[in-house]
Amino acid sequence: MKKQPISDLFSRVREKRPLVHHITNYVTVNDCANITICAGGAPVMADAAEEVAEMAAIASALVLNIGTLNRVQIESMILAGTMANDRKIPVILDPVGVGATQYRTKTAQRLLDTLDIAIIKGNAGEIGVLAGAEAEVRGVDSHGLAGNPVTIAQDFAQVAGLTVVVSGATDIITDGKTTNLVENGHPMMGSISGTGCMAASVTGVFAAESKDRVQAATAAFAAFGIAGERAAASARGPFSFKTALFDEMASLKPDDLAREARIRTG
Amino acid sequence: MKKQPISDLFSRVREKRPLVHHITNYVTVNDCANITICAGGAPVMADAAEEVAEMAAIASALVLNIGTLNRVQIESMILAGTMANDRKIPVILDPVGVGATQYRTKTAQRLLDTLDIAIIKGNAGEIGVLAGAEAEVRGVDSHGLAGNPVTIAQDFAQVAGLTVVVSGATDIITDGKTTNLVENGHPMMGSISGTGCMAASVTGVFAAESKDRVQAATAAFAAFGIAGERAAASARGPFSFKTALFDEMASLKPDDLAREARIRTG
Amino acid sequence: MKKQPISDLFSRVREKRPLVHHITNYVTVNDCANITICAGGAPVMADAAEEVAEMAAIASALVLNIGTLNRVQIESMILAGTMANDRKIPVILDPVGVGATQYRTKTAQRLLDTLDIAIIKGNAGEIGVLAGAEAEVRGVDSHGLAGNPVTIAQDFAQVAGLTVVVSGATDIITDGKTTNLVENGHPMMGSISGTGCMAASVTGVFAAESKDRVQAATAAFAAFGIAGERAAASARGPFSFKTALFDEMASLKPDDLAREARIRTG
Repeated sequence: MKKQPISDLFSRVREKRPLVHHITNYVTVNDCANITICAGGAPVMADAAEEVAEMAAIASALVLNIGTLNRVQIESMILAGTMANDRKIPVILDPVGVGATQYRTKTAQRLLDTLDIAIIKGNAGEIGVLAGAEAEVRGVDSHGLAGNPVTIAQDFAQVAGLTVVVSGATDIITDGKTTNLVENGHPMMGSISGTGCMAASVTGVFAAESKDRVQAATAAFAAFGIAGERAAASARGPFSFKTALFDEMASLKPDDLAREARIRTG
Repeated sequence: MKKQPISDLFSRVREKRPLVHHITNYVTVNDCANITICAGGAPVMADAAEEVAEMAAIASALVLNIGTLNRVQIESMILAGTMANDRKIPVILDPVGVGATQYRTKTAQRLLDTLDIAIIKGNAGEIGVLAGAEAEVRGVDSHGLAGNPVTIAQDFAQVAGLTVVVSGATDIITDGKTTNLVENGHPMMGSISGTGCMAASVTGVFAAESKDRVQAATAAFAAFGIAGERAAASARGPFSFKTALFDEMASLKPDDLAREARIRTG
Repeated sequence: MKKQPISDLFSRVREKRPLVHHITNYVTVNDCANITICAGGAPVMADAAEEVAEMAAIASALVLNIGTLNRVQIESMILAGTMANDRKIPVILDPVGVGATQYRTKTAQRLLDTLDIAIIKGNAGEIGVLAGAEAEVRGVDSHGLAGNPVTIAQDFAQVAGLTVVVSGATDIITDGKTTNLVENGHPMMGSISGTGCMAASVTGVFAAESKDRVQAATAAFAAFGIAGERAAASARGPFSFKTALFDEMASLKPDDLAREARIRTG
């Protein structure tokens, strides 16, 4: 894969500072807001049915995260997502904990059926459940997926007509035709709560400035992964790692992204 | 402006540890709780209609922040605000994102109409929208205000009968008669989510111990700004800055506040 | 008290990584999630009535925290708690702010009446209020308890048939027959928001792997207290302390726990 385009995209993100509207969980929402800023975007969190369409109408991307789902939020996700679809801004779905409860699985499926989702991002278990594969999710953690995750992601992307990201040691990013594998990242990213949610936020920031969904998600995962690698170098534990993760995301430059990205085609 | 009074006020805050009741957004609520402690207060967050009046009845100040507004919270803000008004404890309003959606604008106006707000704090765009000036708010960020912000704030303060704070590189604090300009602060405060909300919390802490609203807000913005300046000196990025911001707020002494405050009359 | 059992319990926790379902407040929820991971568990936060029973059905412990109570959450606490009781997994109750408002006091009493609570953890004021002693709670802080807290805790434990933890400079842990006093901890733990909530989460992690409730809570408070002592050694203020608290909790080893625990029988 050519790296200049993702470097250029990152420069554009930093210059434009796109507004990314989130409807997300109350556990990691602060992390999502801060990583959005560090990546180069401007976050806004709003989930009241009375205002979400209006907020989505001024945003450049919409991130939907079902981490602490409730009925009011679902209604708001549909309203904001419909506005985002009308305006053709990308909608990123993070189906947190899908498979752990029927409520999460049904809601994610309803969002997929009702809205035009540009990019869905989950761990292997979550994507497996939605793709109809044999997969297990315990709480919000993946506990296995039977089959080849690349093939499952590609098939799911083609059938559902969207870009699929399976996060993991190697991130799989595919629209069913083009498949990228991102090798950046560090095991310490699994030692804190919220890195999955943050990766979706960063994806929203990059997708706001690129119509190429695979490119946007690839750039986002490479950038966030590099920040993780750099942060791990100085960390003494999970929370000093977290502190450094934000610092490194903020200081990462487009040229660094091109130089340090480890991307293979799948 | 004489600095001894704000130093004395800060000493009183640290001694009394006033209870500051917050009804606030779920994005930066943890930051608000922690900065309240670091400034010298005791935070309590409660937003259920069943208990907010009772909680406001034991508090020394009430902070209302509409960052993630919903209909339940509005009802609770009215209930708590009414109790606060009855008890004559100060109510601080942070109209986050006013102007970005009708819902926020109408709610802020309803709160201003229904309650006796002691201090309103916003960025230039937010205050401009409420003052009836030409102003733009995108998400939760100010995107410009036509006219002189000092005059706009002074006129708004006089018409609405409250103390107005316009946060920015220079913070404007006015009740329409006395106007203070606070030069403390650092650009890194804009590199993280929540500094605006935190400034409102610190204002609540100081306002709990001073009937002079302009003095309380001036002391709060000077203190928080000095903490920001000191934090920036050691920060390697936004999150190590944030860590240091709390540490510096906690270690700031009343004498330091008097010595390092940069306050002009406007 | 013999220390080998708590060291073995900690080893078991780290090996099993128990899923701890939380229904908790939106102020410190991120801290609870992260300290759960650092202690060795896997957190999941879910509070929708539609899914809480299903989530509790796959968890190994349930933590109920009433820090930002509302009527929807109460319903969910009953549903999840009933499932937890059916499955005989431990339910830990943190009655945050009990005594500050009638709503909190009545809700905590309703949870105690309706559910089989394994462990209740509060500060002296909160436990005093529920035990029927003369006690004062201001916001979420204890403001005194008339009488001997050890005796009050023991009597409450016997009458209510559960394990009682009174957190403080010396933590009191009792089921009415066995009483442990944990001397670990550091005053800086009171300089940040959320250490009380985090202690309940750590207790949930340990209780998931031990049927001996007193042992589980004792191990949890010793471990968390040691992490606090170690963190204080390097901290420059409340937030660098908080960062180190997570780091130290994650790096604490079962042998360290046995060596550094300061536990007396009461």
